Amino acid sequence: MAKQLSRRAFLTASTTTVAAGTLAACASEQPSRQPGPGTSISPIRVLHEEKVEFFGTHQAGVVTPAQANLNLIAFTVRAGVDKAGIRRLLRLWTADASRLCAGQTPLGDLEPELTDTPANLTITCGFGPRLFDIIGAQDQRPDWLAPIKQYSRDKLDPKWGEADLVVQLCCDDPLMLAHATRHMVRAGADYVATKWVQRGFLHAYGAKDEGQTPRNLFGQVDGTVNPRTPEEQLDQVWIDEGPDWARNGSCMVVRRIAMNLDTWEILDRESREVSMGRKLSNGAPLTGDEEFDQADFAKTDSFGLPVIDPMSHMARSHPPADHPEQRILRRAYNYDLPPEPGSEQLSNSGLVFICFQKNPKLQFEAIQQRLDEGDRLNQWITHIGSAVFFIPPGVQSESDYWGAELLGEHQ
Amino acid sequence: MAKQLSRRAFLTASTTTVAAGTLAACASEQPSRQPGPGTSISPIRVLHEEKVEFFGTHQAGVVTPAQANLNLIAFTVRAGVDKAGIRRLLRLWTADASRLCAGQTPLGDLEPELTDTPANLTITCGFGPRLFDIIGAQDQRPDWLAPIKQYSRDKLDPKWGEADLVVQLCCDDPLMLAHATRHMVRAGADYVATKWVQRGFLHAYGAKDEGQTPRNLFGQVDGTVNPRTPEEQLDQVWIDEGPDWARNGSCMVVRRIAMNLDTWEILDRESREVSMGRKLSNGAPLTGDEEFDQADFAKTDSFGLPVIDPMSHMARSHPPADHPEQRILRRAYNYDLPPEPGSEQLSNSGLVFICFQKNPKLQFEAIQQRLDEGDRLNQWITHIGSAVFFIPPGVQSESDYWGAELLGEHQ
Ligand code: HEM
Ligand code: HEM
Repeated sequence: MAKQLSRRAFLTASTTTVAAGTLAACASEQPSRQPGPGTSISPIRVLHEEKVEFFGTHQAGVVTPAQANLNLIAFTVRAGVDKAGIRRLLRLWTADASRLCAGQTPLGDLEPELTDTPANLTITCGFGPRLFDIIGAQDQRPDWLAPIKQYSRDKLDPKWGEADLVVQLCCDDPLMLAHATRHMVRAGADYVATKWVQRGFLHAYGAKDEGQTPRNLFGQVDGTVNPRTPEEQLDQVWIDEGPDWARNGSCMVVRRIAMNLDTWEILDRESREVSMGRKLSNGAPLTGDEEFDQADFAKTDSFGLPVIDPMSHMARSHPPADHPEQRILRRAYNYDLPPEPGSEQLSNSGLVFICFQKNPKLQFEAIQQRLDEGDRLNQWITHIGSAVFFIPPGVQSESDYWGAELLGEHQ
Repeated sequence: MAKQLSRRAFLTASTTTVAAGTLAACASEQPSRQPGPGTSISPIRVLHEEKVEFFGTHQAGVVTPAQANLNLIAFTVRAGVDKAGIRRLLRLWTADASRLCAGQTPLGDLEPELTDTPANLTITCGFGPRLFDIIGAQDQRPDWLAPIKQYSRDKLDPKWGEADLVVQLCCDDPLMLAHATRHMVRAGADYVATKWVQRGFLHAYGAKDEGQTPRNLFGQVDGTVNPRTPEEQLDQVWIDEGPDWARNGSCMVVRRIAMNLDTWEILDRESREVSMGRKLSNGAPLTGDEEFDQADFAKTDSFGLPVIDPMSHMARSHPPADHPEQRILRRAYNYDLPPEPGSEQLSNSGLVFICFQKNPKLQFEAIQQRLDEGDRLNQWITHIGSAVFFIPPGVQSESDYWGAELLGEHQ
């Protein structure tokens, strides 16, 4: 009997037929994939049953708990493609993305075997500054949709720079991700050329407790302080004013940040913790015990010195009391490539630092200004790429598409 | 109670306290990770509990079911490093690899948080042709440990060529894999420099039923015909003659093979199936219904034509009746990189084709000779890299190390 029972059938059956105590024990095997503090018990979940809803008020892939793998693709619109062309592209892409995320095969894709396990795939689309020129909507471009201000420590390489369109694919299965990426690139090929691809990864699905904050390649718990409730997200992430086409959208800032493992690893653990203001073991602030304890920046030790160094990354990135709006949603992925030929370094690693906010001038730029002026972490990190995108609101139905209201058909 | 129960405790407890029917239902959620035909029911398994034993007669990572992610690193020995240096390197590497695979932190690694979830990590070491010169054992070098014969269709790029040492890391968790790779590269840095890195991926742990044969980026079930029983493996993979230092070792051939998705995807499904001789749906031979059905190369259709095209990849790679030794263990991974700058292609994808055998002259080369002369698949694939390594036998205890017998300390 057990052999014939499909997974889906078991998921339903178990809630009614399995003794309650055993179900709880089974359930404890697969805690909820919700991020943040607290534990919740959810039914048994297996990766190949997992999907994220594509349709909604907001695009998925923003507040969605981060999946294991990222492909972030930036595109340049080909010469001669006009507003009508962009409309066709976005209709096509939206239809294909919605199918891929639901485990269906998009039109023109002959491989149902490669699309039947979405494994939490999300596909998120964003528009770069020049797209507003291409569609003849210069005057509607948000004033923040422009290259991020240059900072003194930046070493930006234009090869990771601004682009006309971005597609962010996140998925717990690398093969599904590769196929979905391939499909989106091919589907758009008449309209756009790939400018850059940034790949990243976090822990595999199931490698850690669900909802556990991921670690970066410096070994730090990275992503603790983040907007988790709908209220916080509305406050920090989702645009809630201005024209209809912008509302429920957001702004994505992408910074490629190299992390020097060779020099970082020379530090002892205490120095690593001081530079961050948090413990390596569980990510707790140095003034607390648990990851989600509030940091106490005023606390001093027996010598009267602050326990959390005011130049630590946490202290510097934390919003000042008079600027509570200086918060962002961070959704960063690790990258790890072979060293460039001729490089003296043993690794070529870092973060594809992706953050979402209403307005990067008031949020990302204000924080980064402080970090650039002083942050103990600066010794080991270098910003090498930068791009900004407008994230249109979610797609509400099959007849809707990314940016439809901006492109003038729903007004 | 369920909340306090640790995973490990539950795994033990469940076998004694849970009603048998329920246990079977739970167990059906996590079928065994054994490869090959047939289904077996194993206890509930979760990725973060999974480990592969490092010590044994043979190295792990050869007949081990393929994990989701691959980092294959080839090294050049630095000038001036002699036999004593190689011995120190291999002692160091073996000790570190055994710890990493067991979820322990190697010496000099201050990050227990990045090493506590091995997620089926295996680390396998191989020696290239020149290593025998460096250790003054030219006369002991197996005659097959030399560059693979050049084929007419080869387009080999020396940047993916022969190297002195190779370390193959396979893991179901990309973060653990990155950290283990980083550790091995750093630990060896005084002795060796990285020559190339080949990364690859298959399905994530849990995305498919355990033991299901993976697919490549052409959408084909790839890995069906492989030695699965210990007898077949002894027959095809493990060296069982010659000096003690070679016995229970193997030979690894690495071919980097580009796959042209742009032209492949123009084909309809039937043509794709004809070129392979197998069905896309489940990998069954065109003469059968199920993946593991025996192919019937003699079967003809109503027109008297062979059902499996004699020029199909399967027909050409299958051992001829008079050469049953022409079999190998294939353990290939997909790669998928951004197109090279200036490339006309939309993708830069293919296989890190890794195979294991006793003797590549009699096995890999004989098969590849036939494929080079004629194989329908040739239209869409190009061999762009080639390297051969001797895989020393397994490490038996903590005092043993990779290649100890060859390096003269156990003789
Ligand atoms: C490689 C570069 C970076 C690394 C390794 C890094 C790492 C971390 C870590 C480990 C934390 C503490 C745990 C947490 O709350 O997630 C943190 C917090 C934070 N980081 Fe970064 N970060 C980097 C760059 C940036 C950048 C470029 C920004 C924005 C300009 C930023 C903004 C923040 C903010 C806002 C917090 C939360 C501060 C608070 O406690 O209120 N980080 N970062
Ligand atoms: C990109 C290149 C290649 C692709 C996509 C590919 C794909 C496949 C597929 C789908 C199968 C059938 C299913 C299976 O048994 O796994 C197969 C079988 C096989 N392939 Fe390949 N292959 C490639 C290159 C090679 C090379 C270079 C060799 C060795 C020289 C090789 C040797 C074999 C063998 C021995 C079989 C089993 C044949 C039998 O049924 O007895 N393949 N391959």
